[in-house]
Amino acid sequence: MASRVGRYTIRLDGCAAVRGYAGYAGKKEGEGPLSDAFDYIAEDNTFGEKTWEKSESRMQKDTLNRALAKSGVTPSTVDMIFAGDLLNQCIGSCFGLREFGIPFVGLFGACSTMAESLALASLFVENKSANVTAALTSSHFCSAERQFRYPLEYGGQRTPNSQWTVTGCGAAVLAADGDGPFVKEVTFGKIIDMGIKDANNMGAAMAPAAAETIKAYFDDTRARAEDFDIILTGDLGFVGHSLLCELLEREGLKLPNLADCGMIIYDREAQDVHAGGSGCGCSALVLCSHIFNNMRAKKINEILFVGTGALMSPTSVQQGESIPSVAHLVHISSKK
Amino acid sequence: MASRVGRYTIRLDGCAAVRGYAGYAGKKEGEGPLSDAFDYIAEDNTFGEKTWEKSESRMQKDTLNRALAKSGVTPSTVDMIFAGDLLNQCIGSCFGLREFGIPFVGLFGACSTMAESLALASLFVENKSANVTAALTSSHFCSAERQFRYPLEYGGQRTPNSQWTVTGCGAAVLAADGDGPFVKEVTFGKIIDMGIKDANNMGAAMAPAAAETIKAYFDDTRARAEDFDIILTGDLGFVGHSLLCELLEREGLKLPNLADCGMIIYDREAQDVHAGGSGCGCSALVLCSHIFNNMRAKKINEILFVGTGALMSPTSVQQGESIPSVAHLVHISSKK
Repeated sequence: MASRVGRYTIRLDGCAAVRGYAGYAGKKEGEGPLSDAFDYIAEDNTFGEKTWEKSESRMQKDTLNRALAKSGVTPSTVDMIFAGDLLNQCIGSCFGLREFGIPFVGLFGACSTMAESLALASLFVENKSANVTAALTSSHFCSAERQFRYPLEYGGQRTPNSQWTVTGCGAAVLAADGDGPFVKEVTFGKIIDMGIKDANNMGAAMAPAAAETIKAYFDDTRARAEDFDIILTGDLGFVGHSLLCELLEREGLKLPNLADCGMIIYDREAQDVHAGGSGCGCSALVLCSHIFNNMRAKKINEILFVGTGALMSPTSVQQGESIPSVAHLVHISSKK
Repeated sequence: MASRVGRYTIRLDGCAAVRGYAGYAGKKEGEGPLSDAFDYIAEDNTFGEKTWEKSESRMQKDTLNRALAKSGVTPSTVDMIFAGDLLNQCIGSCFGLREFGIPFVGLFGACSTMAESLALASLFVENKSANVTAALTSSHFCSAERQFRYPLEYGGQRTPNSQWTVTGCGAAVLAADGDGPFVKEVTFGKIIDMGIKDANNMGAAMAPAAAETIKAYFDDTRARAEDFDIILTGDLGFVGHSLLCELLEREGLKLPNLADCGMIIYDREAQDVHAGGSGCGCSALVLCSHIFNNMRAKKINEILFVGTGALMSPTSVQQGESIPSVAHLVHISSKK
């Protein structure tokens, strides 16, 4: 049974194992440096559907099906699914998951959703409130662009600080038994708003939330940087990552093993992605392919996975609001 | 510690008590039959803010502050808050709650959010993963109309089946100690889609989800209708309620004590609300004022609270999609 450690952290007894996982990627992501790790790479980004929103739903459906198959479980044995996405009213998840017949806990954590869903799905298994759970999220470049920025046909210029929304989906199936990796601790983050108003500079808006949650975790657990192979944020990108390093150093936290999914999913120079990748699917895809593969191979043993989300909408930006952000942390280990 | 009962239900040991709660209402709701129960009734629906979205955020902030004060706890003692709303990217919650400094678990359950948040907040307390939690949600007629239908200035005609989005917010604070009422069981629902496509007939879209979850609960627990003073759905309204009665009868479930928050929050004839109230705030406000007041007064002792949500967006409707729905059930008792 999980117990609280310090002010913000919840420690698990190692009863929540990743039983299986899958990562589905879009075409551009499939041309990047992590392509070997993906279960599926789309030939085009339609996923055989007629609208980008339906493509995103289809990607969630297919990814969950693959994760379930790799876990050796059928939908009818899954007790709960924790999912959400960036689309208005989370229609990526609501439509993508409607045929599974699994009790559905809808989430909104913006790009922190993979960490949020994994944390909740793990705690439900750990506390025996569920036997088998699933956690997943997605993003799609084309559905996100037209919702948050401009229709693709408009051909808007991108600023140097802007990030590229990943077309991708990651899903993990949790159970008491499984090869792992294993969820050991979670820290749910507070909403942090430092007044950043530039919706093309999400990394800067999210970095303070990541700093706050990482600091809370280290304060609570008295862990040391060297306890972890990687401390992996979700989608701060190059700009947000630099800022995070600076913020943590000011707090006396030097973390040489900090990395970011948004920085490793693309080849920055060759793929013209400006400040890196972003979107719920960015961290979900990297975690549920590259990272979990390496943890199963024992090449990576201890990680802090810190999902970062910018909690804004086009409406809030138009109304002159700043961008509140949140970061949730999950400590994952290859050992039970 | 909570344990699973049957296929879908989780039973609590009575360790999750409602320590305090508050309900804030708009002007129209304050003119309805439940007005005496509300903590605050707005003179106009701006709540002193310049845009309807900011009004909704402000309502969440004020309601949570009142619920915390009535619970005798400060924000710094609350371990987690579970919240969400209907606005794109849940900005009602993200902006309304950003100043509290409480770890934030963002939810999207459409109008089922009060049941979803209450269920999660209770389970975290019950399983000792948190000491004090809060659950809340809201809706606002004006922000919902312009997002889901037409700008108010357009003066669109409403169809007879349509419902009136409640301007209101309900918040509950949960802890191991408190006067109650107490959360005893929860059943998270599946996504159900019976192919209803009329976005002006949400009640019909949501009724099958309510029927499914209620049936799952009775199958799991072997409870009888007479064990409950009220079985209270969220916002089916008059049309959806009739349909739910019919669907349950077909399944052999005769529940004479079925009621719906959307039917009791307004005076149907005098207030011109067509098929009744709707919105996340509808069930949140009724529960966190009228119902909890009556439970504390022991006039109502056992209820099943069944939040109902239509998981659609304007985009999904425009693309010809049907309306998937979900219903989450919480069994609440005045006795520990």
